[in-house]
Amino acid sequence: MTRTLPTGSPAPLDLTAQDYRDRRGRLALTLQERGYGAMVVFGPARVSYLTGFYFAATERPVAAIVSDTGDGTLFVPALEADHVRQQCPDLGDPVTYPEYPGGGSGEHPLLTLGRELRRRFPRARALAADLGGYESRWGYRGPRLEEAAGLPVHEHLEFVDDARAIKSPAEIALIREACHWGDYAHGLMQQALEIGSDEMLVSHETSLRATRDMLAALGSRYVPKAREGLPANTMFIRGRNTANPHGLHQTGGVQAGDILVTGAYGVVGGYESELERTMFVGEPTPEQARWFGAMLAAQDAGMAALKPGRPCHEVEQEVRAVLEAHGAMPYVRHHTGHAFGMEGHEHPFLDLDDPTEIRPGMIFSIEPGIYVPGLGGFRHSDTLVVTETGAERLSLYPRDLQSLTVPV
Amino acid sequence: MTRTLPTGSPAPLDLTAQDYRDRRGRLALTLQERGYGAMVVFGPARVSYLTGFYFAATERPVAAIVSDTGDGTLFVPALEADHVRQQCPDLGDPVTYPEYPGGGSGEHPLLTLGRELRRRFPRARALAADLGGYESRWGYRGPRLEEAAGLPVHEHLEFVDDARAIKSPAEIALIREACHWGDYAHGLMQQALEIGSDEMLVSHETSLRATRDMLAALGSRYVPKAREGLPANTMFIRGRNTANPHGLHQTGGVQAGDILVTGAYGVVGGYESELERTMFVGEPTPEQARWFGAMLAAQDAGMAALKPGRPCHEVEQEVRAVLEAHGAMPYVRHHTGHAFGMEGHEHPFLDLDDPTEIRPGMIFSIEPGIYVPGLGGFRHSDTLVVTETGAERLSLYPRDLQSLTVPV
Repeated sequence: MTRTLPTGSPAPLDLTAQDYRDRRGRLALTLQERGYGAMVVFGPARVSYLTGFYFAATERPVAAIVSDTGDGTLFVPALEADHVRQQCPDLGDPVTYPEYPGGGSGEHPLLTLGRELRRRFPRARALAADLGGYESRWGYRGPRLEEAAGLPVHEHLEFVDDARAIKSPAEIALIREACHWGDYAHGLMQQALEIGSDEMLVSHETSLRATRDMLAALGSRYVPKAREGLPANTMFIRGRNTANPHGLHQTGGVQAGDILVTGAYGVVGGYESELERTMFVGEPTPEQARWFGAMLAAQDAGMAALKPGRPCHEVEQEVRAVLEAHGAMPYVRHHTGHAFGMEGHEHPFLDLDDPTEIRPGMIFSIEPGIYVPGLGGFRHSDTLVVTETGAERLSLYPRDLQSLTVPV
Repeated sequence: MTRTLPTGSPAPLDLTAQDYRDRRGRLALTLQERGYGAMVVFGPARVSYLTGFYFAATERPVAAIVSDTGDGTLFVPALEADHVRQQCPDLGDPVTYPEYPGGGSGEHPLLTLGRELRRRFPRARALAADLGGYESRWGYRGPRLEEAAGLPVHEHLEFVDDARAIKSPAEIALIREACHWGDYAHGLMQQALEIGSDEMLVSHETSLRATRDMLAALGSRYVPKAREGLPANTMFIRGRNTANPHGLHQTGGVQAGDILVTGAYGVVGGYESELERTMFVGEPTPEQARWFGAMLAAQDAGMAALKPGRPCHEVEQEVRAVLEAHGAMPYVRHHTGHAFGMEGHEHPFLDLDDPTEIRPGMIFSIEPGIYVPGLGGFRHSDTLVVTETGAERLSLYPRDLQSLTVPV
């Protein structure tokens, strides 16, 4: 059990301007190869990935424009211009628009963006973009970029997301640190659990205590990236509700005999970790213990199968062979895991229909689940990084039944 | 100051199956008028609005299919099927797919959806949809619906969102209750503020205390809708950082002389409130007090201008006249307000470029802001409902300078 404060590693807890330049440089090479003068990126995580600009995504469009020489420019509402200058001093002034839907300019922001793109890239015959336009977040309505720019737009989100899937040593260090704090927060939650514990209150109380300890330990090395949310988080669902893979919170307290499915994560420098555990309040029944054992065997198989050079679907095949041998297939409701990092789930997936090659630097959750209606759910999830020869588990919380049983 | 627990109103704190049927019925009339046999809705809030199905939106596509007779069907991954049956017992079985990206089916989920649409609507010559396809949430990649269904798809998110803008009495009752809890939470935060208070910790501690009190007061009348987040929330930013309209959290404690820009909201039955206040730690300087007064006058003007039958832009014009008279226009960075309810911002906007007619039942924030670089930001925000003759303020927290000064 993680009961002491993890000591921070000496690695920096943020990326550098050079990291963002390197990312744009790699994207520029792709653009050159594919014959595009520029790419427009709307997805908020992709914008942050390419520029280091973190923001609250709203109905006001934000985009990053990256040229085939690696130059980056942000397109933001006027009210975000100072944030850009503070967070991305090496990017130069952003292109701004007054307000969405127009703020008196009489021009939709996407038309402003379209004009700017034609001005900057007068010889472009087509543009690359991650999406066809700004997504309909909150009250946003607007034209497609193709219409706004008067140029064909080719959607190639994979130009960014395939690069995002391979984490750099600096990114892996942040995720490793996030895993420390996920483990730590989970330990605090386990200590706090008792009969009558309310899901929502215990989860958030523990998140708050873990965050307080994390901020105290990291001090100024911790750089907040998002506007909302705590950097150390815990949650759990309980009882038969756990038989839903994405169980919703319910009111009422923990009871003896409950199965719990928990989650805990840290966020460091904008990177998340993942940790989930199946727990028991009091001794499990023999049937519960049997499914727990089957789940653990399947997770072991998934962790052993995660190796560079293999396609993602082979991991899923090996996990399924174990689940099949335990008679668990009728209770399987999702695949084995997913990549992640800046977002909770990222491409690729450990799924029978994902042929993506597993490569060193990829981060995956390994989390096969067994969901028995009327009885409960059984799922551990851990964070692993793919190495040159296999994979290393970065979340180190105990996985065995005894460690995960709350005495009553 | 709201210091006592508000007593719950007798109104139900959730909508009924009939409310969702009525919404689909109204959409069906629109579809009949416009000659569509069915509409596919991908936006998560729109799906919840039409079906009562609340879920954690991920890379696994979810959609609602509404026919021109008002029938509703959910399209979900297999792991959400039980949630649909629990939350929407009158909807009938959902259409499911095994997993994203395929789970061994060899078929992308959007192709499954496309097949199902052709089977159900064999004579359709075109489909209406809110969006051209499932948005690229997390690691999702997929074809446009047009491609997947082999039918022209016409994007008409306004078929749903224009109806969403007019709140029913039941929705207004939920927002009124949410406002109570926003006021209450803000009161707790104000009580807790002192020199050295950390933004993130005080915000979340207060959110947790307010949530505990709210859950105790409402008991089983409170129906959780979303998987994460507290139903009573507070936050603040401080110092010169407030000169950014969307200031990011920073580490470090509150200091004497700080300006604070706060926020607090409740969530009841899936509906949010909005409340923001400008506060001072110790007596404001004369310059600060002057800008505070200008902001207050502008907000007064906005609240007085909000009347049914007028276009949105007239509210903004009247607010700007007041800001102009105070010499504040160089420091204005955004329009006066926005509609909201299920989401933090919704269409329409109190903006010079929004001609939408203001109608009874619309909910707006009124929040003109003044942002003076190097000095700070000045913004109150309140929740108002448009009535038959004007507007009623639902957030009742004190607005005057004296009430909002923290003694040091």
